Amino acid sequence: MKGRLRSFPASAPGEPDLSLDVPATVRILEGFVKTEVERTGLRRVVVGLSGGIDSALAAYLAVRALGPSGVVGVLMPYRTSSPSSTSDAESVVGALGIVAERFEISELVDVFAAKAGNVGRRRLGNVMARVRMLVLYDRSVEHDALVLGTSNKSELLLGYGTIHGDLASALNPLGDLYKTQVRELARALSVPKGILAKAPSADLWPEQTDESDLQVTYEELDRILALLVDARVSPETVVAKGFRRATVMRVRQLIVRTHFKRKLPVIAKVSTRSIGWDFRYPRDWKT
Amino acid sequence: MKGRLRSFPASAPGEPDLSLDVPATVRILEGFVKTEVERTGLRRVVVGLSGGIDSALAAYLAVRALGPSGVVGVLMPYRTSSPSSTSDAESVVGALGIVAERFEISELVDVFAAKAGNVGRRRLGNVMARVRMLVLYDRSVEHDALVLGTSNKSELLLGYGTIHGDLASALNPLGDLYKTQVRELARALSVPKGILAKAPSADLWPEQTDESDLQVTYEELDRILALLVDARVSPETVVAKGFRRATVMRVRQLIVRTHFKRKLPVIAKVSTRSIGWDFRYPRDWKT
Repeated sequence: MKGRLRSFPASAPGEPDLSLDVPATVRILEGFVKTEVERTGLRRVVVGLSGGIDSALAAYLAVRALGPSGVVGVLMPYRTSSPSSTSDAESVVGALGIVAERFEISELVDVFAAKAGNVGRRRLGNVMARVRMLVLYDRSVEHDALVLGTSNKSELLLGYGTIHGDLASALNPLGDLYKTQVRELARALSVPKGILAKAPSADLWPEQTDESDLQVTYEELDRILALLVDARVSPETVVAKGFRRATVMRVRQLIVRTHFKRKLPVIAKVSTRSIGWDFRYPRDWKT
Repeated sequence: MKGRLRSFPASAPGEPDLSLDVPATVRILEGFVKTEVERTGLRRVVVGLSGGIDSALAAYLAVRALGPSGVVGVLMPYRTSSPSSTSDAESVVGALGIVAERFEISELVDVFAAKAGNVGRRRLGNVMARVRMLVLYDRSVEHDALVLGTSNKSELLLGYGTIHGDLASALNPLGDLYKTQVRELARALSVPKGILAKAPSADLWPEQTDESDLQVTYEELDRILALLVDARVSPETVVAKGFRRATVMRVRQLIVRTHFKRKLPVIAKVSTRSIGWDFRYPRDWKT
């Protein structure tokens, strides 16, 4: 991917500033986790620790909000997961002093694969994500805890995640932070260096990286997303700022095509008050 | 449950009329399924057939909308599922002339249970629902299809379902029909008599029935729900109409406490346009 950085435009006028006020942002996110958990009457979250930067940052923020006793890490490696993923996840557990559990998903996924036949690695990747979801939701009951989401804004906007898999959670402190902003915050909170340095990857198969899946670096991607989404400019305007047309159009298309992953099921309306239409309350509705 | 029907009040003034204009409702729901599927560019749905009335009605409506070739039934029995559930599901497949598949979930669930230890039957029930979800979503890819939802309004309002399990779907034609209305429609569409006659059950363990889980009949429940939700009257007003106070209060509490199941994860807002807050489009957003 490095070679493509050459065609990268310098920051242009009218481009959203993605730099963060780090202390203010940390304060907001800490408060968000604390408030959202405590208003449900609970005190704890479970978080799936993949060894990546997103789940690490989510765990760091949750420990600031709830203390180490308020966070349970769950490691859910598959047989082909990189061993460094496990050791990176363990480094988060050690640095934060939280309780962690390990639940290998290999046998479950392999039983599925044996029954389903050759479904290909993409579909198997979705199965892994959903098996992890069901483990995490079950562990959340064990610990009287909520499931902490770890998807960032870049992934969410591209639909680069599995619906009812890694996209499932009760609350998500990272969903409004682009990947490059996750990195900035993770550096500021002293997330272990090995995690900061490595290439982002869903680790669903060897050699997979986000940037080769998405065919764009996060630096370029986030600037395009911020223009399209936050600045609300047209794809043509983004191209005029110097970004590659093919990339801009592909990003635009991914945002639109994957919107279903960011919405609830559509319910046919036949009554006067229908769920999702005119029966609407906050998630933590109380009377 | 029968004995309790004695305390049941006669229909009171101001009570919503739950009788349906059957031909009009069928036309709306048929059109809903057809439109929602075709606007995604697909032509097919997959539906998990449990042998119950909800999934049967959903399949009947989908066949009216898309033809028999547009519907794939998936039977996903667990070891302890009632054999009559399978034969009832097969009667739907036979009556509609659709393709059906069978994917036993016993081994997957048992592998989970062996690893997780004794989690109790309620948590295991959630695992079953989520395993069925992951099978159904995977089969939907195989068939270029959308996952058809089968949760009715009574279940959805009470949160009587598993989030990221049976509550997961792309589109749901039944979500605005109370259970008693599902029955009326199913009768009108000639769903097999064995399915119409039996007691509703999640069939997660032997002897389970919805009405014993919920401690109320659907006839009573739906009238209470329609008063609270559609007529928007207070619990006190419902009690004044002759319904048992304890039941009304429990129903009210279930609606409120399970609202999280009807909402997306909460994302912490830190930018100008945030997913779920001010970045909002229809589920099938097209540009």
